[in-house]
Amino acid sequence: MADTREERFMRMTLELAIENVKSGKGGPFAAIVVRGDEVIASGTNQVTTTNDPTAHAEVSAIRAACARLDSFQLSGCEVYTSCEPCPMCLGALYWARPDHIYFCATRDDAAASGFDDSFIYDEVVREFGKRNIATNRILPGEASRPFDAWEIKEDKIRY
Amino acid sequence: MADTREERFMRMTLELAIENVKSGKGGPFAAIVVRGDEVIASGTNQVTTTNDPTAHAEVSAIRAACARLDSFQLSGCEVYTSCEPCPMCLGALYWARPDHIYFCATRDDAAASGFDDSFIYDEVVREFGKRNIATNRILPGEASRPFDAWEIKEDKIRY
Repeated sequence: MADTREERFMRMTLELAIENVKSGKGGPFAAIVVRGDEVIASGTNQVTTTNDPTAHAEVSAIRAACARLDSFQLSGCEVYTSCEPCPMCLGALYWARPDHIYFCATRDDAAASGFDDSFIYDEVVREFGKRNIATNRILPGEASRPFDAWEIKEDKIRY
Repeated sequence: MADTREERFMRMTLELAIENVKSGKGGPFAAIVVRGDEVIASGTNQVTTTNDPTAHAEVSAIRAACARLDSFQLSGCEVYTSCEPCPMCLGALYWARPDHIYFCATRDDAAASGFDDSFIYDEVVREFGKRNIATNRILPGEASRPFDAWEIKEDKIRY
């Protein structure tokens, strides 16, 4: 049976992930942003070669696609990623708001290969006082000051 | 009573967030990365002015601090953020692994001001089939291929 359109795009994504490992650019992850039949942008994991812990495949693909489309939103787009997004990348996807997400490997596959995805999913739902990175809330009485400035800003651009 | 060291750094962060709104650069959020008594880097929300949905305060501060320290890890550092990190930024913090996180406003404060933080926290814990952005797993039989390439890569740099 011939590949579906979505399977073709995912195969392309998997090849990018494999090539990323072989070339030594970073971890075994890739993502592409597609609109209709066009690949708008791609991204691969380049954490260690760029010294940027946020340079995951999805974040990189989102940033590149938004730069190309001159927009901070990916409405009308699909994102293909070789692995279920980690919480950082899932959050980035929610802020970018594409129409559809397709993934291949799972967070457990990533964990089995030594990546923290599954651990971070567990941490995100914990109360902040019980997390693995020590976290404290301070100066709560002043928390509203930036939001107050935002409320009265007349020409603000919401996102 | 005099401010503690941590309160001083948080006040600095709040001022950056307020200035970010007033100058029209983006949303009411700022973050700084501190090591000892030194501010290594700062970041503010610049989503709409840079067309980058990942340009939240914490992600920007992490990227700038890692660039300055020439490292993809922030061990030995503290991160101060004007608002509880959204899931994207919390994920980024876990990947960067600072020693301590201090925040001021909460996700509910952010939601009350029109930001999706709380909504995204709810989405992250949902099964992917029940999320607000349509999500599908495809080609599961090929999921391991990038990880297989990673396993046999001899000179890989783990992160």
